[in-house]
Amino acid sequence: MVYVTRKAHFSASHRLYNPAWSDAKNDAVFGKCSNPHGHGHNYELEVTVVGKVPDDTGMVIDLKKLSDIVEQEIVEKVDHKHLNLDVDFLKGFVPTAENIAKAFWQILQGKITDGRLYSIKLFESENNFVEYRGE
Amino acid sequence: MVYVTRKAHFSASHRLYNPAWSDAKNDAVFGKCSNPHGHGHNYELEVTVVGKVPDDTGMVIDLKKLSDIVEQEIVEKVDHKHLNLDVDFLKGFVPTAENIAKAFWQILQGKITDGRLYSIKLFESENNFVEYRGE
Amino acid sequence: MVYVTRKAHFSASHRLYNPAWSDAKNDAVFGKCSNPHGHGHNYELEVTVVGKVPDDTGMVIDLKKLSDIVEQEIVEKVDHKHLNLDVDFLKGFVPTAENIAKAFWQILQGKITDGRLYSIKLFESENNFVEYRGE
Amino acid sequence: MVYVTRKAHFSASHRLYNPAWSDAKNDAVFGKCSNPHGHGHNYELEVTVVGKVPDDTGMVIDLKKLSDIVEQEIVEKVDHKHLNLDVDFLKGFVPTAENIAKAFWQILQGKITDGRLYSIKLFESENNFVEYRGE
Amino acid sequence: MVYVTRKAHFSASHRLYNPAWSDAKNDAVFGKCSNPHGHGHNYELEVTVVGKVPDDTGMVIDLKKLSDIVEQEIVEKVDHKHLNLDVDFLKGFVPTAENIAKAFWQILQGKITDGRLYSIKLFESENNFVEYRGE
Amino acid sequence: MVYVTRKAHFSASHRLYNPAWSDAKNDAVFGKCSNPHGHGHNYELEVTVVGKVPDDTGMVIDLKKLSDIVEQEIVEKVDHKHLNLDVDFLKGFVPTAENIAKAFWQILQGKITDGRLYSIKLFESENNFVEYRGE
Repeated sequence: MVYVTRKAHFSASHRLYNPAWSDAKNDAVFGKCSNPHGHGHNYELEVTVVGKVPDDTGMVIDLKKLSDIVEQEIVEKVDHKHLNLDVDFLKGFVPTAENIAKAFWQILQGKITDGRLYSIKLFESENNFVEYRGE
Repeated sequence: MVYVTRKAHFSASHRLYNPAWSDAKNDAVFGKCSNPHGHGHNYELEVTVVGKVPDDTGMVIDLKKLSDIVEQEIVEKVDHKHLNLDVDFLKGFVPTAENIAKAFWQILQGKITDGRLYSIKLFESENNFVEYRGE
Repeated sequence: MVYVTRKAHFSASHRLYNPAWSDAKNDAVFGKCSNPHGHGHNYELEVTVVGKVPDDTGMVIDLKKLSDIVEQEIVEKVDHKHLNLDVDFLKGFVPTAENIAKAFWQILQGKITDGRLYSIKLFESENNFVEYRGE
Repeated sequence: MVYVTRKAHFSASHRLYNPAWSDAKNDAVFGKCSNPHGHGHNYELEVTVVGKVPDDTGMVIDLKKLSDIVEQEIVEKVDHKHLNLDVDFLKGFVPTAENIAKAFWQILQGKITDGRLYSIKLFESENNFVEYRGE
Repeated sequence: MVYVTRKAHFSASHRLYNPAWSDAKNDAVFGKCSNPHGHGHNYELEVTVVGKVPDDTGMVIDLKKLSDIVEQEIVEKVDHKHLNLDVDFLKGFVPTAENIAKAFWQILQGKITDGRLYSIKLFESENNFVEYRGE
Repeated sequence: MVYVTRKAHFSASHRLYNPAWSDAKNDAVFGKCSNPHGHGHNYELEVTVVGKVPDDTGMVIDLKKLSDIVEQEIVEKVDHKHLNLDVDFLKGFVPTAENIAKAFWQILQGKITDGRLYSIKLFESENNFVEYRGE
């Protein structure tokens, strides 16, 4: 079993905001991350697939194919977008890194057919990142 | 003469948009950077000061002091903000990295009294950055 | 379950030295890391917390809160210090990265009440790092 | 138990090519990675050893010793080489990152006598990397 | 005047070799960089353009346009190639970073029509890089 | 003319302290950088040489030679040392990054005989760095 990771990048804005709460409560819980006009990040996304290494190709999954899946299913839909307002599959919950990673997992899980999806790692910044392994 | 640089970070959203133009023209010129709800970046800012090195302190400028100036005058005003909507000193022009760097120069130039401001370098992402030297 | 990581930085000096040994033995075992006046590093610390993601906040732990805990309990006590001489909770053992990581775990374990502490990763340099998971 | 990692670097060229296949099939499967004259990378290698921390040394494994093993057994044999043509232990399979990592594991496993080898992580580029844990 | 930089990446192999010299002399001058089968790097290329900032666009040069020029004129021709054997415009000289940077300058100089080309910076590795400014 | 840069690394401790001043004044001017037992950094050093590119070698200076000079003249003397106490050529002034960079210039200037020394850039941390060009 080998773990294969492909990294992708996108730039987006978001706002931490729970519409069930008052503005005051959002401000108390999310602080400056709840600024009404939003703020943004250069997100880094690491998608890890695990599987056996076939003798003939030597590849758990063709990295070009993995890169294309990540590009089409994720990056094209979130890059240069406002994550609360512009992305259908991110609606209905607070777009924290935790929830975004889980949403990416839901999308990618069915698309990876060579090996199986092992981990989604999402960096909001160099100092803050999350990982979801479908557990 | 030694060049001393302090790096700072902020996360913000912006939209490339010229209000004198139609939406179609904005879209033609700025592409996805003109998405109406904006997008965002983890900006990196490098402020460089040049000067002589005094014998007693060995410092062109106290880096703590430089850091405090950059924090108060810039980072507190732009971090977790929408650069088009939330920042007074960025109004009246398209908030490209070029124009933001020039605006930062205007603000910092008068605040640096040990040595003189030499350069403002602004990274929008790892792959895109600009530098302004007041020329 | 999502793994959430916050990165912190500190600059400190240390010396690998076992007082139960002769200087010659310390030199034989630790080499240049045993230089009597010490040497130093820009340490990078990654603290990972694992937990469920609540619907209302979308956060395993508020990263601002996690950052404050790490800052108060660790960074303020070790930054710009000599780890052998200036830090009470690092006394009584050789301050290798392994032992420092374990000491940080002891301190942080009781302070993390949202989710549970999963890992302490400590980088002495870009090329040398350790991880402790409380096992 | 603490996980200790040492990072090493080497620059090498390789070509993804299965000699049992026609050139057309190689081209179809491996694309530009199958360019006949090869292409190259600055590889980054992370070798992780896990073990208990002895009281007297505080080190799972002496990092100087681990570094020397990695240098002699791996880096000296692959640095500034063509991985398909110049390296005996990489012959007989397609030199994908997956297969190279497994080959490195075979070599290093017997050489690590303090603690035990836990993981080989190999970066072909900043965006593509694999990990093998001997499973 | 603002300096605008776009970074690009390519992976290639090369060999330092002067055909006017004996193998022994090549080996004496270039050492392991003269390995007959070549070796490789993940090159990083920074292209800097300098110019005035127009009021209407706020951009010295459209970074998308600059990126497209660099992609078409350089990256597509060198990525996943052997620089001595596969690239017409790199023939006739030793492909050191110095000479590659100068060759890139010759190609790009005529293609940049917004602002003017200021610098070509080429990283062979994190530790070795060159810059050419057309002087 | 091409600018060629070689990067080197060393880990050291230091203390900002002017012996002509009282402890109170040192504390007021240098703050936590004046901690009596010192603190430390992973320093990064970039040495840049500028010169013409000879036709036969394609190299301004052999990077192996430049690397050896930097290693022997600088790194071996400062790595894993206390810069105030263990390094003869750093005595007699406050070991700020500014003064260390100037001291490195004095040493390296006479040793570089292919091309001429153009710049010494010294990073104390990712966020703080200085450059000296002999002006």
